[in-house]
Amino acid sequence: MKQDDIKNLLEQVRKGEIDTDTAYELLKELPYTDLGHTKVDNHREIRTGYPEVIFCQGKTIEQICQIIQHMNKNETNILATRASKEMYDEVVKIIPQAEFEPLSKIISVKKIQTGKTSTYISIVTAGTSDISVAEEAAITAEFYGNAVKRVFDVGVAGIHRLTDKIDEIRKARVIVVVAGMEGALPSVIGGMVDKPVIAVPTSIGYGANFGGLSALLGMLTSCASGIGVVNIDNGFGAGYLAGMINKL
Amino acid sequence: MKQDDIKNLLEQVRKGEIDTDTAYELLKELPYTDLGHTKVDNHREIRTGYPEVIFCQGKTIEQICQIIQHMNKNETNILATRASKEMYDEVVKIIPQAEFEPLSKIISVKKIQTGKTSTYISIVTAGTSDISVAEEAAITAEFYGNAVKRVFDVGVAGIHRLTDKIDEIRKARVIVVVAGMEGALPSVIGGMVDKPVIAVPTSIGYGANFGGLSALLGMLTSCASGIGVVNIDNGFGAGYLAGMINKL
Amino acid sequence: MKQDDIKNLLEQVRKGEIDTDTAYELLKELPYTDLGHTKVDNHREIRTGYPEVIFCQGKTIEQICQIIQHMNKNETNILATRASKEMYDEVVKIIPQAEFEPLSKIISVKKIQTGKTSTYISIVTAGTSDISVAEEAAITAEFYGNAVKRVFDVGVAGIHRLTDKIDEIRKARVIVVVAGMEGALPSVIGGMVDKPVIAVPTSIGYGANFGGLSALLGMLTSCASGIGVVNIDNGFGAGYLAGMINKL
Amino acid sequence: MKQDDIKNLLEQVRKGEIDTDTAYELLKELPYTDLGHTKVDNHREIRTGYPEVIFCQGKTIEQICQIIQHMNKNETNILATRASKEMYDEVVKIIPQAEFEPLSKIISVKKIQTGKTSTYISIVTAGTSDISVAEEAAITAEFYGNAVKRVFDVGVAGIHRLTDKIDEIRKARVIVVVAGMEGALPSVIGGMVDKPVIAVPTSIGYGANFGGLSALLGMLTSCASGIGVVNIDNGFGAGYLAGMINKL
Amino acid sequence: MKQDDIKNLLEQVRKGEIDTDTAYELLKELPYTDLGHTKVDNHREIRTGYPEVIFCQGKTIEQICQIIQHMNKNETNILATRASKEMYDEVVKIIPQAEFEPLSKIISVKKIQTGKTSTYISIVTAGTSDISVAEEAAITAEFYGNAVKRVFDVGVAGIHRLTDKIDEIRKARVIVVVAGMEGALPSVIGGMVDKPVIAVPTSIGYGANFGGLSALLGMLTSCASGIGVVNIDNGFGAGYLAGMINKL
Amino acid sequence: MKQDDIKNLLEQVRKGEIDTDTAYELLKELPYTDLGHTKVDNHREIRTGYPEVIFCQGKTIEQICQIIQHMNKNETNILATRASKEMYDEVVKIIPQAEFEPLSKIISVKKIQTGKTSTYISIVTAGTSDISVAEEAAITAEFYGNAVKRVFDVGVAGIHRLTDKIDEIRKARVIVVVAGMEGALPSVIGGMVDKPVIAVPTSIGYGANFGGLSALLGMLTSCASGIGVVNIDNGFGAGYLAGMINKL
Amino acid sequence: MKQDDIKNLLEQVRKGEIDTDTAYELLKELPYTDLGHTKVDNHREIRTGYPEVIFCQGKTIEQICQIIQHMNKNETNILATRASKEMYDEVVKIIPQAEFEPLSKIISVKKIQTGKTSTYISIVTAGTSDISVAEEAAITAEFYGNAVKRVFDVGVAGIHRLTDKIDEIRKARVIVVVAGMEGALPSVIGGMVDKPVIAVPTSIGYGANFGGLSALLGMLTSCASGIGVVNIDNGFGAGYLAGMINKL
Amino acid sequence: MKQDDIKNLLEQVRKGEIDTDTAYELLKELPYTDLGHTKVDNHREIRTGYPEVIFCQGKTIEQICQIIQHMNKNETNILATRASKEMYDEVVKIIPQAEFEPLSKIISVKKIQTGKTSTYISIVTAGTSDISVAEEAAITAEFYGNAVKRVFDVGVAGIHRLTDKIDEIRKARVIVVVAGMEGALPSVIGGMVDKPVIAVPTSIGYGANFGGLSALLGMLTSCASGIGVVNIDNGFGAGYLAGMINKL
Repeated sequence: MKQDDIKNLLEQVRKGEIDTDTAYELLKELPYTDLGHTKVDNHREIRTGYPEVIFCQGKTIEQICQIIQHMNKNETNILATRASKEMYDEVVKIIPQAEFEPLSKIISVKKIQTGKTSTYISIVTAGTSDISVAEEAAITAEFYGNAVKRVFDVGVAGIHRLTDKIDEIRKARVIVVVAGMEGALPSVIGGMVDKPVIAVPTSIGYGANFGGLSALLGMLTSCASGIGVVNIDNGFGAGYLAGMINKL
Repeated sequence: MKQDDIKNLLEQVRKGEIDTDTAYELLKELPYTDLGHTKVDNHREIRTGYPEVIFCQGKTIEQICQIIQHMNKNETNILATRASKEMYDEVVKIIPQAEFEPLSKIISVKKIQTGKTSTYISIVTAGTSDISVAEEAAITAEFYGNAVKRVFDVGVAGIHRLTDKIDEIRKARVIVVVAGMEGALPSVIGGMVDKPVIAVPTSIGYGANFGGLSALLGMLTSCASGIGVVNIDNGFGAGYLAGMINKL
Repeated sequence: MKQDDIKNLLEQVRKGEIDTDTAYELLKELPYTDLGHTKVDNHREIRTGYPEVIFCQGKTIEQICQIIQHMNKNETNILATRASKEMYDEVVKIIPQAEFEPLSKIISVKKIQTGKTSTYISIVTAGTSDISVAEEAAITAEFYGNAVKRVFDVGVAGIHRLTDKIDEIRKARVIVVVAGMEGALPSVIGGMVDKPVIAVPTSIGYGANFGGLSALLGMLTSCASGIGVVNIDNGFGAGYLAGMINKL
Repeated sequence: MKQDDIKNLLEQVRKGEIDTDTAYELLKELPYTDLGHTKVDNHREIRTGYPEVIFCQGKTIEQICQIIQHMNKNETNILATRASKEMYDEVVKIIPQAEFEPLSKIISVKKIQTGKTSTYISIVTAGTSDISVAEEAAITAEFYGNAVKRVFDVGVAGIHRLTDKIDEIRKARVIVVVAGMEGALPSVIGGMVDKPVIAVPTSIGYGANFGGLSALLGMLTSCASGIGVVNIDNGFGAGYLAGMINKL
Repeated sequence: MKQDDIKNLLEQVRKGEIDTDTAYELLKELPYTDLGHTKVDNHREIRTGYPEVIFCQGKTIEQICQIIQHMNKNETNILATRASKEMYDEVVKIIPQAEFEPLSKIISVKKIQTGKTSTYISIVTAGTSDISVAEEAAITAEFYGNAVKRVFDVGVAGIHRLTDKIDEIRKARVIVVVAGMEGALPSVIGGMVDKPVIAVPTSIGYGANFGGLSALLGMLTSCASGIGVVNIDNGFGAGYLAGMINKL
Repeated sequence: MKQDDIKNLLEQVRKGEIDTDTAYELLKELPYTDLGHTKVDNHREIRTGYPEVIFCQGKTIEQICQIIQHMNKNETNILATRASKEMYDEVVKIIPQAEFEPLSKIISVKKIQTGKTSTYISIVTAGTSDISVAEEAAITAEFYGNAVKRVFDVGVAGIHRLTDKIDEIRKARVIVVVAGMEGALPSVIGGMVDKPVIAVPTSIGYGANFGGLSALLGMLTSCASGIGVVNIDNGFGAGYLAGMINKL
Repeated sequence: MKQDDIKNLLEQVRKGEIDTDTAYELLKELPYTDLGHTKVDNHREIRTGYPEVIFCQGKTIEQICQIIQHMNKNETNILATRASKEMYDEVVKIIPQAEFEPLSKIISVKKIQTGKTSTYISIVTAGTSDISVAEEAAITAEFYGNAVKRVFDVGVAGIHRLTDKIDEIRKARVIVVVAGMEGALPSVIGGMVDKPVIAVPTSIGYGANFGGLSALLGMLTSCASGIGVVNIDNGFGAGYLAGMINKL
Repeated sequence: MKQDDIKNLLEQVRKGEIDTDTAYELLKELPYTDLGHTKVDNHREIRTGYPEVIFCQGKTIEQICQIIQHMNKNETNILATRASKEMYDEVVKIIPQAEFEPLSKIISVKKIQTGKTSTYISIVTAGTSDISVAEEAAITAEFYGNAVKRVFDVGVAGIHRLTDKIDEIRKARVIVVVAGMEGALPSVIGGMVDKPVIAVPTSIGYGANFGGLSALLGMLTSCASGIGVVNIDNGFGAGYLAGMINKL
């Protein structure tokens, strides 16, 4: 049910062509399907332009399979984040074309071909250990049809590595910067570019990084402007937001 | 000195029309002026597209006057945030056309007329007490030539007020949401729109809000997608980032 | 020993029908039985209207079996929370009619049939992963004879799912709202209903949710009124309090 | 506009007695009045059974006067919390019958006489310094027509003071317990009564109480059951929730 | 080497009966034996009246065996806390009379019979799960020759259990109170007795107890007087301090 | 009413010489006097051996005067801590022999002469700025008849100052150690003496001391044994506990 | 009394030229002078090579004057940090040559001319507001005879300002880097130089900087090597440590 | 490519002996080698005097092998910290002369013999459990050619053990002090020596040490001067910084 269908239905109600009880039933079924444990948000694409995404962490394999099976009935692409290999092994039995990318822990099902944007998103990491979070961002952005360029391991302790890549980064339409420890890279990049920066703190580090707190606070208090921060290790959120901005 | 000037200079060096020492001196003076306490970043507009902004908090009135006086020599607009009335009273003696907006605590000097974008930024607050932060965002965005629409006091405890305004919000190109206390409004709006949301936690509240921590953590852990968070009470940062996205 | 028995005993003391030493011994045994490691609170039902509940976490299987065996001597229903399958496997050897509900991790023994209240408690979750906490609340409330209606996965990122269910929620006598991440759902529901809301933050989430802190602070600083908060993941406490209110 | 008015209006729409545009306009004005800085929630009483309350902290005196003046047009009682004497001095110029209670910092305007409930709320404090928070709870509850009995300074360090008052506390329909420092009183009372307990941590104390954190954590982790916690120093929230439960 | 030996040695130096180099060597060896990884504090008993105690957590089994073997050469009792069964299995091979108490995780070797004090220490727990910490306190105190009486599971949620035992507690010379969750028991006992109370917060609980923080803060901010607090789960420290006070 | 009076009364009840209602009234009045805002704990001396102490912070001058005036009717000494000069100025109008010690902020009224113990309490500070907290401890201990010796400014950064005083400290029956910043002094002293140490963290310091947190955590995690910790800046609590131990 | 004096004294004791009591008295007076509230550490220069420094914050003006007056008797330079103008106004009455530097809040008395080192310390700030902390470091280092070069306002948001100054910084023997907000500058400089970096977090910032916590955690978790961190705003500590290293 | 090579290259550009494109390519390859996941910083030795170090934690064994294999091509020593035995088992297959030190978890490859400095670094621990962190510091410092002397288990609870070793410590050029729990040892040593102290907090402890926070805060707020702090458990950082200072 798209936006036009709903408008038509309402018009029919106005004209008396359809009684309110029937209309109610139709509309009631529109927004989501209730699987008991989960209300699959069918309406989400209409509302936000993007289909619902499955956050696998904390769900049972059984629940995930039921959700993914339900979504598979529609002609829609499916994205499931924070999945384990065990989850994928069950999902692929149901949907053979499902793919799993172990670094980013993403299961995806692509039925409809999405084009690539001409502008690209630059996804940058401070270190090697930040790559899995960066890949979650990259694959999410690509899933929604964005072109992505990856620049990994250019942290501030060897800033010439960044200088070397800065032109490529600068030409992106939006930049995702992934960093753990002190999380200083978004500040440095933010001071060098004229594009929005999405900063992703990671939990990489130990001791006084307190599970990513040091990077998170560092990015929030950055002296550079033009930076929006997402949750610690939230590669998906960064890729989603960057994609949204890139496609404006 | 704009991008072209620099390219010309480098070409002259290559051709031997200018010796390296002279070129060095010219370039050395290009990026900033050193006032002793402050290095005014003249180069910033070239690099990031935006002139330097003065963050007044923690600076003496004397320092602010010197910076603003220096910047005033160039044909550039000036923005100074977190200013007090006392600061403004001194600034206006030097630059009579300087303006002060007490709610947002912004001093601005506008010499060059900036146009207005056709698309607009929606700036939304949860409560009445969040308005001063929202105004900092709004005036910053407007300073950079963005059209802004304000929607105030539509917090989640009376969600029908939001529903009533949601269409206007949805039509914006980018949305800034300012909220204190539990900071739930960005989650609700994020789930209703297909536009990037910049979330600004405020320190409004008491007790377990711990100076804005509750709103900050709430926004970072939002179950909605497409949200970037800035520092507590950082209206400037939100307005700047939103403007950057709006003008992409 | 019920309230009347105690009053009779005291009257006998006054009349000299029983000497104080004997009375003391009778009363000394009344309030609890000492198992060495545990003092089973026999008196609790008289005092608070509810028999003691066994919190299994942190106790050894042996201790739990001894407590449950002691309680089983009396004509009372038994509730044991945060139990594991291993604990249940030993308990059921002793008390064959003991039941185990794995989602809520509750062992219960029902000897006396409790009626159902005509009014009901609405138990609502923001997400699928919050269900196990919600079930702990629901089964606790049902154990004490309350009717319960479950509404799962209606979090604020897809608020139309909530709107659809709001009438059913509103008709409850008391509402339990279970949410992790930013914990915004109690604020939204609290602003829509005229019934007490018991808010349960869960540890569902990652990064800046810091083990449930984000949801906890969010619920405590809610801009909506009529909300009482319990500990993170404390489904039992919410179900107990909701039942107490429902039966007023 | 009460619930019946809205039903009538909808019926008129259905019958074609009123066109949808007109109905829309009527309904649009129903839910709130927009004062620019504030959207006064006229609809709140219909939705939650209680008129909007003004939280004064963080608002300017001018804003408060405008809100209170607007609300005064309707035949409704007005409650404004966290007010200062300075705020009251301006309010009373506009509405001479406005009253101010300095201990609780509440401004109230009572136009409609509210009856008193036959059941009462017991409001208990651990210490003398907790009384101002307790009074905020008490006056809020009384404002909504609840009978209240106050029991002050019965903290756990001299538990016989509590024992002496426990019967009066026990006979209440719902109990509000206000305590700072270690916040142990709700646990002790919760173990003695069969009524819901609303626990209010206060910021009273110093050092390791960290602005009320010790009392807050203590109440949330209470070993007693039947306790709901509100924000630090949130007397209003406790009185409101207790009143809501008392009137069920 | 006892206090008198040292005085004699110094006197010999003064009289020239022994040269300073020799005296230095003797004194150098006096205070500790260096095992490379560990400097066993032989001098500790002279200085503080108590022999060194081995804190096993974080040490390798090999290190523990070497330390215990060294100490075993002297005619001294040995106490090793936070030991595992694996550690004990190796220790007992070296010193057959070594004993292990699994609840308290203490290894002890008793060569010299210590008498029992006539006064006793009362060791009280709020719950059953706090017993292992209490046993660490009790066995430590007993190791140093103190009489101990245990009172377990008398937490504030069923305060009559405490009332019943309060006379026994009151007659102790010093009282150790062990409690997790909100840690309210020391406050209640502290208000009832005229003896020093050593409060031990435990990590028992979940959610907002944050690993024992709630109990720790509660005990530190207690409204009762005469309470000293030790580290979370530090049964040893409490038993040691209580024994020191008891033997004054 | 002393312990014997109560026993007599109960005997009279048993013999029927007094009816239960009369006895109840007598006992009801025994434990405290209700001033409305405060329940003065008359019974406290019987129960804990010490009369009630007035904690002035957070109370109004009027409340303090009423409490002190009530206590003054009895033949008892009065101690009021955290008092201001303003409070004293009113108190002294009522009770001319009241004394005020500005460094410790203590008001005291001494009617009954208390002897001095032969053993003494050593009260030690790390720095000069810790003296006001130490004086609160010292004057409290002296108020209860304890001999006190003060040793100030012997912090660990110049440990020879401590070495010089260690004999005097060692001869005390109990030692109070007051330190801010890293709070290391109790560890050092605890390793040198065979007496109980009461450690008082102070809020002296800046930055990472976070209002006394660094000293508090340092003292709680001390590697020395025999240390009990009180709240940050809680000189009163330390003096009270030390006195209690000294008088055992 | 210098090191040689002490050695002579000990030799006299050995030879019997002086009795032990007299020697004890001489040595007892050597290490410090006791002013009651303060033990002035006369011995400190022998032990650590530097005379004692007065930390004024938290001391009364009277105490400071007494300490400074006592120190003035010796032929030594005097340094007093965190002083106010009020403190200086009293000190200068006693010691006319005392100087006050308001930005760094340092009082100094220079009697002995200290040379300047040929190597220098580079003291760098990220922003203008960090200068007062940097000046505390600079003046401290200069007080101890170190050459200092200041580089202010070269924070990472405009990294070209740093690049311009990096050669001067690199040639220092040790570098002090002062930064607030995210505290990223030490990481960037640390990656560019082969000299030890002393990082000083400042409390400059707002919101999620939590009084300097963000900068502190950032510096501690820096991905660059060769960085030692001091307390928030501890310019003195940084200048002292840098001077110590510079003079090695 | 060393510093001279680069200078030569630049001279060639100036003389026109080499065109800018070629020079660019040469310089582009100079600073690092891109392995995809990692940019090995070849330039680091030129810039900071030390070759890049591999931080193994968070990297896959495959990534580590690739990095180490790449670095092995050059005539450089290799240091890899926080390595596991599993990592080493793969590395040694590639580079047979690689060594693994299990206590410090360091893999090293030594191709070029580094001399030993004549001055030494003193590495001191408070306890036995701190040794693994101390060894990381020691082996790092030795790797870079520094002489090291270890002094283990001299914590403040038995300060005579320290006194005995203080002369050896004092003669070092720089001192690393490793301590967990309350972290008091750097303060005590800092007050006794005239050398820079690098303080390393460890996570050794439990309860209120909160993963090393107590030691970290204690060291940052130390009352002694001349102390720089590194991250919790950061033995590498301390050894690196100490070596840098030692070799000045």
